[in-house]
Amino acid sequence: MKDAVYPVDQLRSFALSVFQKIGCPPADALLATNVLLSADLRGIDSHGLARLSGYVRLWEAKRINATPSIKTVYETPSTAVVDGDGGLGLVVAPKAMEVAIAKAKQVGTGWVSVKNSNHFGIAGYHAMMALEHDMIGITMTNASPLVAPTFSIERMLGTNPIAVAIPAKEQPAFVADLATTTAANGKLEILQRKNKLAPTGWIQDKSGNSSTNPHELKDGGALIPLGSDYEHGSHKGYALGSVVDIFSAVLSGANYGPWVPPFVAFLQPPSDPVGQGIGHFFGAMRVDAFRSADEFKAHMDNWITRFRNAKPIEGKERVLIPGDPEREMHKIRMEEGIPLNGKVVEDLQMLAQKFLIQF
Amino acid sequence: MKDAVYPVDQLRSFALSVFQKIGCPPADALLATNVLLSADLRGIDSHGLARLSGYVRLWEAKRINATPSIKTVYETPSTAVVDGDGGLGLVVAPKAMEVAIAKAKQVGTGWVSVKNSNHFGIAGYHAMMALEHDMIGITMTNASPLVAPTFSIERMLGTNPIAVAIPAKEQPAFVADLATTTAANGKLEILQRKNKLAPTGWIQDKSGNSSTNPHELKDGGALIPLGSDYEHGSHKGYALGSVVDIFSAVLSGANYGPWVPPFVAFLQPPSDPVGQGIGHFFGAMRVDAFRSADEFKAHMDNWITRFRNAKPIEGKERVLIPGDPEREMHKIRMEEGIPLNGKVVEDLQMLAQKFLIQF
Repeated sequence: MKDAVYPVDQLRSFALSVFQKIGCPPADALLATNVLLSADLRGIDSHGLARLSGYVRLWEAKRINATPSIKTVYETPSTAVVDGDGGLGLVVAPKAMEVAIAKAKQVGTGWVSVKNSNHFGIAGYHAMMALEHDMIGITMTNASPLVAPTFSIERMLGTNPIAVAIPAKEQPAFVADLATTTAANGKLEILQRKNKLAPTGWIQDKSGNSSTNPHELKDGGALIPLGSDYEHGSHKGYALGSVVDIFSAVLSGANYGPWVPPFVAFLQPPSDPVGQGIGHFFGAMRVDAFRSADEFKAHMDNWITRFRNAKPIEGKERVLIPGDPEREMHKIRMEEGIPLNGKVVEDLQMLAQKFLIQF
Repeated sequence: MKDAVYPVDQLRSFALSVFQKIGCPPADALLATNVLLSADLRGIDSHGLARLSGYVRLWEAKRINATPSIKTVYETPSTAVVDGDGGLGLVVAPKAMEVAIAKAKQVGTGWVSVKNSNHFGIAGYHAMMALEHDMIGITMTNASPLVAPTFSIERMLGTNPIAVAIPAKEQPAFVADLATTTAANGKLEILQRKNKLAPTGWIQDKSGNSSTNPHELKDGGALIPLGSDYEHGSHKGYALGSVVDIFSAVLSGANYGPWVPPFVAFLQPPSDPVGQGIGHFFGAMRVDAFRSADEFKAHMDNWITRFRNAKPIEGKERVLIPGDPEREMHKIRMEEGIPLNGKVVEDLQMLAQKFLIQF
């Protein structure tokens, strides 16, 4: 199947149908669709429609509960632990972020650690929920162990992203959303489809030697923490990925490290779990819990403008603000539609047949 | 002057005398001494006694207030802004961290942004203050602009460290303390003293080309964010350093980005400040605001043990837990003393003459 561009509305109504077919209540199906589609719109193709069949396979394996009872099971004025009841992370995460936002309204900040969840799409979506409340949003999640700590040949961590969204006034918001690895797994998948080599510093083989083979992970290899090697600070990427793991799972009671259940349904979760499901972590900080929101946002405009106007290296158009490329892609794709890889289209057609719906 | 090893007590009483000579009240002088010396003890030589003469020069330039009135100027139940009144960061920072800890006792977490401060020593010291309260400690600070964002030739950010300290039960605490650059400035200073080249990926020259000259910063060059180059994720290091800058200074009302006053007294602060002094950010989270402290710490023991026992790459002794090397160094140096570089010894002797005290 060839790559092709699809209208946003067609993909939205298709995903909505699929989530309803697996039994999600209409409001949850809509929420899951919005989170999933936001990845495609922002250009994070690996986390959008490309994953829809993966969620369905997890549901078929009875590893996703389509009608979860998502509950706060422990709390203080500024904190909570939320039990996702095995629900779609796409649904559990925004509901947990709402809890963080509600706490921030009361006491200035809210911090929520989540257990018993699944893959939650792009971290940036949930962090950005804080913006309309004049809050800073923070999101983290752990994930299937694909990453080797510095000096390790064992895969112990996921690509464990951190997202931070910060509101401004006239300027668009600052939105950082980054895997704590040199390269996100999605970038590797793109190289695999195109049969291209990876740059040095992204991957190691099963013995811990540097590799450029994007298929290395199937043979016991691992992704490398941000920094690429010890001399360039991979121990810092490892430390950051570890903090994400601990905040997401040791605080909440989810599985951590090598015990995190794999996203792919053909691999079984470890038989000796140390917690429930995967874990996330959410934070919301009211900016007016520190100074007037107007003052803060005016200074953010100044920060953003000054950094965007930093003198670029010759041959580079400009210095980017975190979130610029994704926001620009969002605008383009809302107008022009979303390009899908041929293999993703085949996947969606398979889902259409399975559920007797239109694609 | 040759390198030599000095007893901890001798260095402690010397630093204490110097801080008293510049007018610090005895309790503040003791606090500053403890923070400074903790860097040498943990092996972060660049942030210990080596900086003492730098603080004195800032005091001589009337850029440090030895008798500050450190005050909370804005607060909610879980947040505060602290005005450091131009005090030593070594004194302002632990006092601000105490505010965060006190808030966490009340509502689960505490978050404090600080303005009008100065260099605060090692970030890890302040984060570790949370441990004895069964809290997670988080510390950040901005710093003199030495780092070029991805695609920029201008220096816009400091090495902006993040420290996270997490308590365990039987195991020693997890303590990550990392500059958001490929290499901390201190590592560059070591290469400068030894006249050695830096690895590729640490530094760029004034045109933005990769450089291995450790003196490049004197000629308009810059440090590079964690990741080394765009292909290896330097935009992630840039985003993390930016978050540190915004949390430390835009939230508090300190100077941010290129407006941060330089640590060295021979460079003037920018004439068009956007805030007051430099900024820090502190967080404290009670672990029992999420689950029982005992449960949490038992799982941290399991996390630490599992990661420490991950299979190492051949030729590497073991996989390290963040904080392991610094804790081991602390033990050694408490017993054997602290080695000082010859140039640092000359610096301290100069201070001894200036203040008519013994070294």
